Order: sequence, then C-alpha cells, then structure tokens
Amino acid sequence: MHATKQRLILAGLGLMLARGYNAVGVQDVLSATGVPKGSFYHHFASKEDFALHVIDGYQANVHALLHATLTNRKRAPLDRIRDFFDGVRAAYAAEGYLGCFLGALGQELSGASEVFRHKIEGCLAQISGGIGCCLDEARTTGDIAASTDTTGMADLLVNAWEGAALRSRLARNSHPFDPVLDFYFTAMTKH
Amino acid sequence: MHATKQRLILAGLGLMLARGYNAVGVQDVLSATGVPKGSFYHHFASKEDFALHVIDGYQANVHALLHATLTNRKRAPLDRIRDFFDGVRAAYAAEGYLGCFLGALGQELSGASEVFRHKIEGCLAQISGGIGCCLDEARTTGDIAASTDTTGMADLLVNAWEGAALRSRLARNSHPFDPVLDFYFTAMTKH
Repeated sequence: MHATKQRLILAGLGLMLARGYNAVGVQDVLSATGVPKGSFYHHFASKEDFALHVIDGYQANVHALLHATLTNRKRAPLDRIRDFFDGVRAAYAAEGYLGCFLGALGQELSGASEVFRHKIEGCLAQISGGIGCCLDEARTTGDIAASTDTTGMADLLVNAWEGAALRSRLARNSHPFDPVLDFYFTAMTKH
Repeated sequence: MHATKQRLILAGLGLMLARGYNAVGVQDVLSATGVPKGSFYHHFASKEDFALHVIDGYQANVHALLHATLTNRKRAPLDRIRDFFDGVRAAYAAEGYLGCFLGALGQELSGASEVFRHKIEGCLAQISGGIGCCLDEARTTGDIAASTDTTGMADLLVNAWEGAALRSRLARNSHPFDPVLDFYFTAMTKH
C-alpha cells in the first residue's frame, strides 16, 4: 500500500478510536499527518470511504492476531483462544484502554448508517467465525463438551468481550477482562 | 418537570439513540419538537447539558424497570433479574432494536469526554449494583452457590448484555439476547 495512504489510515485509526467518526474531520487527519487535502482525496473518495479503509486496517491487525494465535499448534485450542484475547487486551493497554474500535464505531454509526452497520457486523462475525473453528477443535479433542454449539459459544464469547471492552473504555482500565475470560473458560470446560 | 423540557428530552432520546450525540444538533431537536431555541436554552445550558438530561431520562426509565422487577416478591430472585432483562429487551424491540443508549453514547463519547465517561460508567454501575443485590438474595435462598461473587457476577451479566445489545443494534434483531441470558443463568445455577 502507498505510504501516504497507510499513514492517513493509521492517523485516522488513532483519532477515531479516541473521538469517534463524527467528531473527527478530514482536516484533523490532514493536520495530524501533514498530508495535503488533494492527496487525501486521491486515495479516498470521501470521509466515509476513508473510515471504511480505517476499519479494514484495524481488521487486518485483528486477522493477523487471529492467525498467529488460533493456528498455533503448540497450544491447546482453548489456550489459543485465550492467547488471542490476551493479544487484543495488550493492544488495548498500549492505546490507554480505549476499548474496541469495532464496538466504538459500531455503536456510534450503526443506528443511522447501513453501510457501517453491515461492515462492522461483518467484521465481528469474522472474528466469531475464527474462534468458532478453534472451538470445533476443542470439541474434537474433548476439551469442551461434545454437545457444545461452537458457533453460538463463539458469538457469546465475542459479545461478552465487546461488553467488557465498553466497560474498559468507560473505566479506562483492564479490570473487566479477566473475569469474563475466566467465567467463559470455566463454564465451557465444566462438563 | 416542565412539559416542554420533558418533550425536548424525549425527542433528544429518540434522535440520539438512532444517530448518536455528535450527529444530532440542537436544531434537529428544535425541528422535531417545534420548540423555539430560546426555550431550549432556558431549560438547558448547552447541548452537553441537554444530553446529560437525556441520559438521566433514560436512566429514570431503567430505574423504574429495575424497581418494578427486582422488588417483585412474587418471583424468585433470579426470575426477577430475568424479568428485568426481558423488560429491557421489550423496550429495544419497540425502538426497532437500536440497542442500549448507555452503550451507544458510552462508546461514542467516552474516549474524548470525561464528563460522559464518568456519567455513563456511573449509570451502568447503578444497574449492576441493583442486580448484585438481587443476586445476594439468590445466594441467601441457595439458588446460586454460596461462594458466588455477586458483585462480580452482576458486572459480568451487565457487560455481556451490553455486548449483546451492540450485536443486536448491528444486526437489528433480538437474536443475541436469549443465548446470553440462558448461558449465564445456567452457569450460575449449576453448582
């Protein structure tokens, strides 16, 4: 990807994670990067188009983490899922506990924008899908009950994490994360 | 409360639940209600002050529902908590599944505004506190394990609900709610 485009996306992610979509103007992104307006509109058709690329950039990082953790054959399937969430939490910590970008933009925009609503639901469904596949392995190895609805459980876990991420953003700390992971992993393995 | 003030708050809740805080201007609220600008600023010092009153209005409804359900002695403590969430879901359904106003505004604003961050965290903590008291009763009656950390469990439940509300807003349906309630109530009573 063009270096300027990448720089704009990275700056947009930082700005929109903190302040949201509507409170960040294209001018804010230009000021943060020193990129001229013409260059911005060379790479992006509009602010909406830009934000969709920012979401893609965020999701690319999530996919890289999903891949690094969930396909790690040295770890048991449930441990891999825990590794994924530990990795997400480490990213949140580095950002000062601003929570999940998908949750933040999803809440802000999905009431009024079908484009963002479908985009962000799709991103969360992808994450849930990846975790569901790993839960399938855990079911095969007998680490979770054979009767487990792995698709449903993956959604439960992702949604509970999103709620914890909201509380983390509100409280600006990591407190909500361990309890939710402990609760789910204990409940799943108690069979 | 003054009828005009109440009308403005109600309109603000509808507009901000759908579109968020930053995308709704004072003019939108005036247009929706036919209230003149001078009257708005007679009741509210600023748009921020207005939104804080809208949150108070939302939270007053939540408190009324908490009171109606959690103090209902005809029902067992855990059933009362389920009644509360069923009531919240019924409200979401009536609004077309736009999710939780506290979650929506909390995500949009808490990265940049300490005022909204503390306000909304306080609202969620109040809900969690009410549920925690009811869980104390469930512990006393033996419906959940004597070892249950009721404060922690109430937070887990509220946070998981918030995550489900996000997914409901994204998918515009009620699908995420039954699984999360079933999972928690099953896990809590399995002892």
